[in-house]
Formats: sequence, structure tokens, C-alpha cells
Amino acid sequence: MHEKGKSYNEIQIKDTAQFTKTITETDVYLFAGISGDFNPLHVDEEYAKTTPFGTRIAHGGLAASLLAPVLGMKLPGLGTLALETTTKFRKPVYFGDTITCKVEVTEKLEKLKAVRLKVVWTNQKGEVVSKGDALVIPPG
Amino acid sequence: MHEKGKSYNEIQIKDTAQFTKTITETDVYLFAGISGDFNPLHVDEEYAKTTPFGTRIAHGGLAASLLAPVLGMKLPGLGTLALETTTKFRKPVYFGDTITCKVEVTEKLEKLKAVRLKVVWTNQKGEVVSKGDALVIPPG
Repeated sequence: MHEKGKSYNEIQIKDTAQFTKTITETDVYLFAGISGDFNPLHVDEEYAKTTPFGTRIAHGGLAASLLAPVLGMKLPGLGTLALETTTKFRKPVYFGDTITCKVEVTEKLEKLKAVRLKVVWTNQKGEVVSKGDALVIPPG
Repeated sequence: MHEKGKSYNEIQIKDTAQFTKTITETDVYLFAGISGDFNPLHVDEEYAKTTPFGTRIAHGGLAASLLAPVLGMKLPGLGTLALETTTKFRKPVYFGDTITCKVEVTEKLEKLKAVRLKVVWTNQKGEVVSKGDALVIPPG
């Protein structure tokens, strides 16, 4: 049996949850195959050397995907329906970077029985690599 | 050598591009490993049978990831800097569904030299599974 997520009534403004993962070369190459995005910035080191980044970087959507385990497995958790997510990309994610995705409840929308969360992705240096928000309906 | 993407001046309102891929069980299990999202809705068929979906479904972020090859490799193409993306999830994506991600330029922001695109993800039945928009800076 799986533990059900938090209901609308159980969730409070300022509740937080997070998930951390090191993004590896393997992740990037698998993500290229999954997404179809073989942009040389991600998979061609010689090309990447000629860009301002100086080396291959991870796909923006890869670091962004760390939001999924937070919403679906922690806050609200199992049974959550994601309505909308927005991601603003601020800094590159390099191979080997350890990314933390943290959410904080900012609003409860009584009519929709939905919850809005602020989302921030930081790297191991504490730099914000992306930020955004998510609108979700917690399990009933 | 890689072919450079379209510049701000080359891009016109109503320009479009798209990418299509069948989402497989393999994609879903690799995405679970990459994202850390082992929500049973994606990886536990017996649990998924008890939900309104009746079977395992793909992660929302997986279908969303098909936007990356469109922006980074087609329109604007190589050298594009993505500033922001928003995704509104409307319908589930089942294993075996063939998803098309299509973008259309809706706005050119002269000051930022950025371009806004409308994004629509449809399945093989023509149903909209997600929609959203993207703000990007084309290569200089």
C-alpha cells in the first residue's frame, strides 16, 4: 500500500518540501533520448566549448523534472493533480551539479480546492538555477 | 558543424515548428530514474488500476520535454536561450500515445529581442493533452 498525500484541508500556507539529486552525464544522455533533444549544447563537447558555457550543460527540463517527485510524492503527495507549472531558467546546470528543488505553499484557492506553490531550484553553491510556481489539486 | 538557429529578425509572427514522438514504457521508467519521481501512478500497474486513469500514465514532465527539441533545434533552433516556459496539463498521456508538440510564434518583444511562442501538445487522436507558452531569446 502507498501512503496517500495531504488533503486540501491538511495543507497550510508556508508548508515546504524538497528533493535533491546530482545530475549526471547519464541523466543528460537518457534525457536526450527521451525528449528527442540532441542539441549539441547537451551532447557535443567540442561544440559546447565554443559557447559561453564552455562545456556541455544539462537540458533545462531535466533539472525542472525534479519538481515531479516533490509534488507527487511529498507535498501534497500521492493523488495530486498538477494543473499548471511555470519555470524561469536563470543559470545553467552542469554535469555533476547537485540540484535541490524546494516548494513552499503560497496560496490556497478555496473555490478550486487547489494550492499554489512557489518553486526554487538551487545548485550545490546555493545559486538559484531556476524558479517558478505550480498550481495543483491535492488528493480528495 | 551544426546549423545555427533563426535570428530575431528572421523570425516572423505565426512561424511554426513541431516534433512528434511515441511515448513508451521505457521512456516512463527512464524518466522515473532521471527525475526521482517513482509515483506509483507511473510505475505500479496494480495501484494505477485503482485510480480514475485505470492504468499507468506517463509523467506530465515527460510529454512536456518534447518542447525542448522544437525550441532548441528547430524554432528558433541552435543557440536559443529559453527564459521561461509554462505548461497547463489537461489530459493524461498513456504508454504508447504519440505526442506532437507544436509551437507558433505569437509575439516579438523588441526590447528584449525575445520571442513568445504558443505551445500545444496533442495526442494521436488530436486531443490537447497540454498547452502553454514559452519565452525565448533566439541566437544573436
